This record gives sequence, C-alpha cells and structure tokens, in this order.
Amino acid sequence: MEDVVIRTLEKVDLRDPILVEGLPGVGNVGKLAADYLRDQLGAKPLATIHSKFFPPQVYVNESGIIRLVSNELAYWKAPAGGGGRDLLVLGGDYQGISPEGQYEITERVLAFCAELGVREVYTLAGFAQGRVVETPRVLGAATVAARVEAMKKFGVVFSRDDPGGGLIGASGLFLGLGRIFGMEGVCLMGETSGYFVDPRSAEAVLKVLGKVLKVEIDFTALEAKAHEIDRIAQKIHEAEQRSAEPGAAPAASREDLGYIG
Amino acid sequence: MEDVVIRTLEKVDLRDPILVEGLPGVGNVGKLAADYLRDQLGAKPLATIHSKFFPPQVYVNESGIIRLVSNELAYWKAPAGGGGRDLLVLGGDYQGISPEGQYEITERVLAFCAELGVREVYTLAGFAQGRVVETPRVLGAATVAARVEAMKKFGVVFSRDDPGGGLIGASGLFLGLGRIFGMEGVCLMGETSGYFVDPRSAEAVLKVLGKVLKVEIDFTALEAKAHEIDRIAQKIHEAEQRSAEPGAAPAASREDLGYIG
Amino acid sequence: MEDVVIRTLEKVDLRDPILVEGLPGVGNVGKLAADYLRDQLGAKPLATIHSKFFPPQVYVNESGIIRLVSNELAYWKAPAGGGGRDLLVLGGDYQGISPEGQYEITERVLAFCAELGVREVYTLAGFAQGRVVETPRVLGAATVAARVEAMKKFGVVFSRDDPGGGLIGASGLFLGLGRIFGMEGVCLMGETSGYFVDPRSAEAVLKVLGKVLKVEIDFTALEAKAHEIDRIAQKIHEAEQRSAEPGAAPAASREDLGYIG
Amino acid sequence: MEDVVIRTLEKVDLRDPILVEGLPGVGNVGKLAADYLRDQLGAKPLATIHSKFFPPQVYVNESGIIRLVSNELAYWKAPAGGGGRDLLVLGGDYQGISPEGQYEITERVLAFCAELGVREVYTLAGFAQGRVVETPRVLGAATVAARVEAMKKFGVVFSRDDPGGGLIGASGLFLGLGRIFGMEGVCLMGETSGYFVDPRSAEAVLKVLGKVLKVEIDFTALEAKAHEIDRIAQKIHEAEQRSAEPGAAPAASREDLGYIG
Repeated sequence: MEDVVIRTLEKVDLRDPILVEGLPGVGNVGKLAADYLRDQLGAKPLATIHSKFFPPQVYVNESGIIRLVSNELAYWKAPAGGGGRDLLVLGGDYQGISPEGQYEITERVLAFCAELGVREVYTLAGFAQGRVVETPRVLGAATVAARVEAMKKFGVVFSRDDPGGGLIGASGLFLGLGRIFGMEGVCLMGETSGYFVDPRSAEAVLKVLGKVLKVEIDFTALEAKAHEIDRIAQKIHEAEQRSAEPGAAPAASREDLGYIG
Repeated sequence: MEDVVIRTLEKVDLRDPILVEGLPGVGNVGKLAADYLRDQLGAKPLATIHSKFFPPQVYVNESGIIRLVSNELAYWKAPAGGGGRDLLVLGGDYQGISPEGQYEITERVLAFCAELGVREVYTLAGFAQGRVVETPRVLGAATVAARVEAMKKFGVVFSRDDPGGGLIGASGLFLGLGRIFGMEGVCLMGETSGYFVDPRSAEAVLKVLGKVLKVEIDFTALEAKAHEIDRIAQKIHEAEQRSAEPGAAPAASREDLGYIG
Repeated sequence: MEDVVIRTLEKVDLRDPILVEGLPGVGNVGKLAADYLRDQLGAKPLATIHSKFFPPQVYVNESGIIRLVSNELAYWKAPAGGGGRDLLVLGGDYQGISPEGQYEITERVLAFCAELGVREVYTLAGFAQGRVVETPRVLGAATVAARVEAMKKFGVVFSRDDPGGGLIGASGLFLGLGRIFGMEGVCLMGETSGYFVDPRSAEAVLKVLGKVLKVEIDFTALEAKAHEIDRIAQKIHEAEQRSAEPGAAPAASREDLGYIG
Repeated sequence: MEDVVIRTLEKVDLRDPILVEGLPGVGNVGKLAADYLRDQLGAKPLATIHSKFFPPQVYVNESGIIRLVSNELAYWKAPAGGGGRDLLVLGGDYQGISPEGQYEITERVLAFCAELGVREVYTLAGFAQGRVVETPRVLGAATVAARVEAMKKFGVVFSRDDPGGGLIGASGLFLGLGRIFGMEGVCLMGETSGYFVDPRSAEAVLKVLGKVLKVEIDFTALEAKAHEIDRIAQKIHEAEQRSAEPGAAPAASREDLGYIG
C-alpha cells in the first residue's frame, strides 16, 4: 500500500487557507485545541488520512462500530464578504509512530495542503514544565523573524531558554518541512505540567490563535472541561492525603484524568 | 523482493465469497477457530502468502522437512444448489511483526480477496479478560450499525466498555482497511483468560460463526482439545498446590499448555 | 541506494553449481565451516555483497586498510573430466540485521545464484544444546523427503524434537526462499554448546558435507584451531577454579575465545 | 518523500575537490573539527541535506526561529594561482539514526559529491580510549596502503590494535561506500576519553589535516574552547571532591560540558 493514503471526501475551493495543526502530544494540548477549534467553528470533514506509520489499530465506539485510526483534515469557510481567510484544521488519533513515519505523513499532508493553496501554518502543542502551571503562558517559535515580532504583539513569549532542545514531532516538522513547500508559520506552545491532559493550556493557546486568525471562539465548553479536570485532580490529591491516614480508600484515581500521553 | 508475495495454487471461481480471518493472537482463539473451520469444512489450499514482514524462519516437521513461515488462504465451495455462499479462510503462523508489516500484509491480502469478489469479512479473535472465564461470551465489533443489530440476534455481545482501547492487530485491521475495499464485516471475539491457548473460547466463536454462515460444524475434536487443556491446567494447579508442600515435584508444567501468543 | 548491491568480480561459467552457505550464527559453526571449505578448495572470489541491512561499519586490518562489511560469494570449479559439479560458497561478516533485511539479502543472493544455474543448496549452521558437547552430531533438515533419506546415509540425524521451534536466520531462509526459485536443499547443523566458537562442530559438519559433495578436505588446520580453543577453555576453567581460592589472578579470559555470537 | 533530499543553494565549479566529513560522534571530535575548519576557511554553504532518517525535529534559535535538523555541505575555493585544490566540508546535526539511514544518507551525499568531481575523502572522528588523554594522538585508517604510508609521514598512528572492532558510523561508511564511487580516503581519529566534548582532540586532528591539505588554520578560538572545557572539568572535579565532605554544594555540573554524545 502507499505509505500514506489521503481520501478526499469533498471537493472544495478555499480562499488563501491557513492550516492549523493539533495532534496528540504533551498534555494533549495541541489535539484538545485543534479539536475544539474544529467543533466550535463547525468545520467540515475534508479528508481522511491513513498510514502504515500509524498503529495497526481500530477504535470501537459505544455502538460497537469500528473506525481505523487516522488523521483528519476539516475545512472552515470564512463568512462571505468579511474578507477573512478560510481554515484547514488537522487533528487525529496519532502522530506517526516512527521518525520515518513522522516525515512521510507530514510531507504528504503538506503536499496535499499546498495543492489547496496553503502558505501559512499554525501548529499547536504543549510545553512540559514538569511542575504545576497555574496560569499557562503561550510560548512561540516561528519560521521567520517577522512572525516572531507579530506574535509578540499577541502576548506570545519567545524565550531564550524554552524550548532548549528544539521541538520534536509533528508541531516542529510541519514548520520545518513546510518551508520546503514555501510555507511560513508559527508554533504556539501552551505551558503545562506534562502530567495530565490540560484543557486550560489548550484554552490559552486557542485564545491567542483566535485573535491571530480573527475568529470568535466560545470557550464555555473548554472551561467546563478544565474545571472537571481540576475537580478530579483535587479529589486525587485529597485521596492521596487521606491514604496517608490508616483505613483510607481512594475516591478517584489518576486514570480518571484520561491522560493520553 | 516484493513486500508481500502471494502464490496462487489454483484458479477458482467463487460465488459471492465471504472471508474468514483467524491468525495467532490472544489465547490463539482466532487461529484455533479458523484452522478448525478450515479442517472441518475440508477447505482447499488456494494461496500461500510469504512476506519479509514475517520472521525469517522455517519450521521443521517431524520428518525433517522445512516450511517457510506463511499465511494461507483456503477456499470452500458451498454445496451446489443450496444457495449458500463460498468461503475463504485465512490462517497462518504469524501476523506481520511490525506495524508497517501489519498494514502491508493486510492490504495485499484484501486486494487479492477483492479480486475474488469478497465483500464481507469475519475476523476471529480472543479477548483477554485477565481472569478465568468459565463460559466465554462472544463479544463483537462491526463496520456498520446494521451488522451490530444482526449479530445481536446470534447472541453476540456489544459492550460499551469492551474492547475499551480498540482492537490492535489483524482482526481490527482487516475490518478497518476492508472498508477502503468496500467490504463490510464483523469481528467476533471470544472471551478468554489470556493466560493460555483456549479451544473453549474458539468453540464459542465458531458456534456463532457457524450459525451466521449457516454451515454445520462438528465440534467433537475441538471439545476433546478443550478437555485436554483442562486436564493439563488441572494437573498444573494440583502440582502448584503440592509444591507448596515440602518435597513436592511437578507433574506437568505450564509449557504443556503450548501457549503460542 | 539499492537495498542489496552485488558487485561481480569475474564472469564465470559454472557446471550445475551447488551453493554452500555459512554465515555467522550459533557457535559460528556455519561461518567457520564455509570459510574453511573456501580456503581449502582455494575457491576464488566471484562477487561482493553490500547492503544497507548490514551494520554501517568498516573493518580495519592490521595494515590500517579499511573494508566495508559484506558477504562474499566464491566459486570453485571441479577438476575437468572428473564429472564433478562446481561449487559456490557464501560467507561473510554478518547476516542481515533485521527480519526484513534477512529476506531482502537472501532473496537477492538466491536470484543471483539462480542466474548462475544453482538448483541445489546446502546451508551450514550450529545447533545450540546449552551444554558441553563432546562429540557433536550433525542434525539435518531438508526441503523434500528424498533428501532426508539421502542425508541419513551420511550419518545426518533427523530428530523429532530438534530443532523444535524451527530455524531462524539465513540457514533456514536460504532453503525456505530457495524453494520459490526451484531449488532443493539441506541444512546441516553441528551440535555445539552455544557458549563459544566451535571449530570441532564445524569439522563435524564439513566431514559430512565433504562426503556428500565428494570433495577431499584436509582438516589439519581446523583441528589445530579446535585444540587451541580447547586449550583456552581449559585455562579459563582452571583460572575460574583458582579464583575460588584466595589471592588468585586469571590466566586467560573468556574473551580469548573470541566468541562472535 | 525522497529518503534523502539535497537542496543545492548555489551552482559551483570546483577544482579537483576534496571532501572533508565531520559529523556528531565520540567526543564530538569530528563535528568540532569540521565545523571549525569550515568557519576558519570561511567556506560557503553549498547544499542542505534533509532526510527522514534524521530525527523529526527542529531547533529553535535564541530569536525564536526554527530550523529543521540537517547536514550541510560547504565549499571553499583554494586561492587562485596557488595550484591548491578546492574543499567540500560536510557537517551537521545528526548522523542517520538507523543503520539503513546511515547507508542511504552516505550514499546520496557521495553521489552528489562524485558529480562535483570528488575523488578523495577525509573523515574526522574521535576514538574513545575510556581514560583521560593528556596529549591526544591521531589514529588513522585508509582505503589503500599508499595512503597509510603517506599519512604516517604526518604523524598519524596506524595501530595494530586500534580500532579493533572497526569503525561504526559515517566516518567509516564514507570511506567504505566511497570506494564504490571510485574515491580513496583516510579516516583521522583523535584520541579522546569519550566522556565529554573534546576540542583538544579536534585540534590534534585538524593540525594533521591542515598539513595534509596545505591550508593554514588559526587555532586560537579552538584552544580557547579547550581551555574553557578544561576549566569546567576542573570545577566539576573539585566539586566532586568537596561533595565527599559534609555540607558541600556543587559549583558546576557535568551538564556544563555540553556533551552531545
């Protein structure tokens, strides 16, 4: 089979579209943000991406229906007459599971997006601080100096030390390989502990992105999710303290945080 | 060499054939079931599948004759005039030993089966419960809702929680990739402990499949195998209890259970 | 680059040639035997095989000259008028270092040999018994029953239990894939402890092969090597016993046995 | 995507050019030497090499600008009328991260260099002695005896025992595969402890290479770097001695040595 199989569900004509990428990773920040953006905008499925560089796996939903693991491109058309630009949102179940797979999948998706007219990319990710982060900042990296300056105006932090060793995985590669396709772009990284799924960090990232892209996003549902995670984390914390006492039983487990990884 | 080499042994013309897949896996349930079905029906060898994604290994039989590890497709023609459909049964020594290999082999076998007219697939597998299962249920997953409903009538259980993380390996992939070839299908999973080879679980799976496919299967030999496993397991259990006593020697070892995978 | 690169050093015309394979493996028996056969016959270099499935490594000889790791085919022409058949001997530094590499290299070498007219293959290997073997037997496996019977007459042992799990690596694969090229063959396995390089086992294998191929082999040098290994092993044994006593120092180390793996 | 992507930045016409390779490895000696040579000569960027056999990674510089990991070829034109030969210097972030990747990248770069007229290669590396090396010698290995003799005149040591097991990685492979392209060459290995980055060993290597290539190199900056490493190593040594005393705190950590590996 082909290394990467892209099945187009619809033929679309997009106006100077911008690609937004958010796949599973640290704190699942990128995936949470991209999926939320897609859902809030009501972006429509455009293409399904399968690859032998994903795990050989199907998911089974509550009704017993299987679905092969994939990445998905959705599109959103800006309101007519508003002068806005259309969006492509890339989300999915996995990043490529080998270095080679990362390159192959990214390159094929970029080639597909280049055909659709994409010249600008935003990649969304988490940045693990290894400690609890009360108010996550949004760190940035960009393909050119002009974009660094532009992002600073939106409050994005460009730190001399973070990320020290560079970016590993899709969020870096979409920018690095994107340049070969003549695309410029920015990686927005929400600070997170790295210990569990972090909707609050995803919200910080999306707030910046919303301003940059000039799209309105209602954060109610994402905030509810963040509170739910807070609540579970609090319960675990209390349970762990109680379990220091004799005869204690856990009220919630770390698995309830549903950390994907 | 080609990634996957399919050598056809015979040219056949099949009537709306159904593919049944059963390869080594949890409790070896899928392989036991598919091999037993093939033997009971007297299905004939149709094609041998070699691949560089199998281990570089030959088996040596009791006479000293070697055989390269492979998968095998066998065919069975339904009795003429009965209006029944023909079957293809896929069994073998191994699943692909890398994620990439799983995809490559599955895709090539599906392409071959599509050429033969297959539009319907049943995959057979074990589902590890991590505890002794006295009366194994048959759990299901399917490509479309209509098949979920159809299977429920045969006693197949579609559980909200099982399999939670989805299916990994050939039994999921034949359904997931099968959809790309326009095939619909069902995965039948026999509950099993996951600790040893489980003919009783294979029997449960085959009883459902026999009704679905409307083929008669004599379970005498499979039940004898199940009793043999029970007998060995019982001996091990007794030996382990005795070995708690001083001066005890084992009467049988876990290796007698011949657990493959 | 090509997966496997075969560079022919000479153009030869061979008379119904037989391929003898012996690569590094258990006790290095196969490689010792094949290299010794090549040297004793004065077989000439025919082709060098490089592959990206070998380690990215060069060896440096005592003069400081590098050589890229490789496999090597040598040829030997039977004395004219004697009615004998020519030989090809395959030896080298490594087997392919991945399952996929094993298949690719074996397939390409077989294709090359098929072009030269090879229809018969002997693969040489060690069989690890996990204990000291005073007088190594030669175990066999073959592609067809007739060859099993033929080999028994030369004292080759076809045991119901050995090798139980089949053969893994080049010695099995050259027979298993060889069948696809219409070749028949035999694997000759010298019993060995599996703990160190075993020239005595290689000698047992070669004695059988010499009779089968009707070639005279002088074993003086191989026996000297075997005595040398015996001597080192004895020293280690003594040193290990002494080191049980207080104040002892080792006279030789296990590394002197130069076990390759 | 292609396994290896070479993007040429400029079209050049070189006079009998010599390739100098120095990539990350033991003590980072090769990379330090090649990068220093390039900088001192003011060699100009010629081509950028990307590959799916590198990690899927981008680096972020102090200004927040990303750069996809790569290897880089730079060229230096010898002064006109001096009769000297031009140079190509290969450096970069990584060697290929799999054996297959090592072969693929090396082969493609050699093919590219062969097009530019390269017939001679010098590879630079470190040789780990596992102990502190006060005055590093430069060990050698070469493709032909004449070059061994030529190098001895420059003080290069060809030792019967070093490197015993051969050379693994790019420095060996560029010579081993280079022969297939009709190139001859030498590997120059600076002795180093193997425990940290070693500019002093790189200097020893470059001093030999400068004489061989008849290029003037100013070592001031490299010696400053060596002193800096010495200073940090000394601090660590003192700190470790103090930490044997009660109540001690480290003044510097081994990480300050920035060992890449």
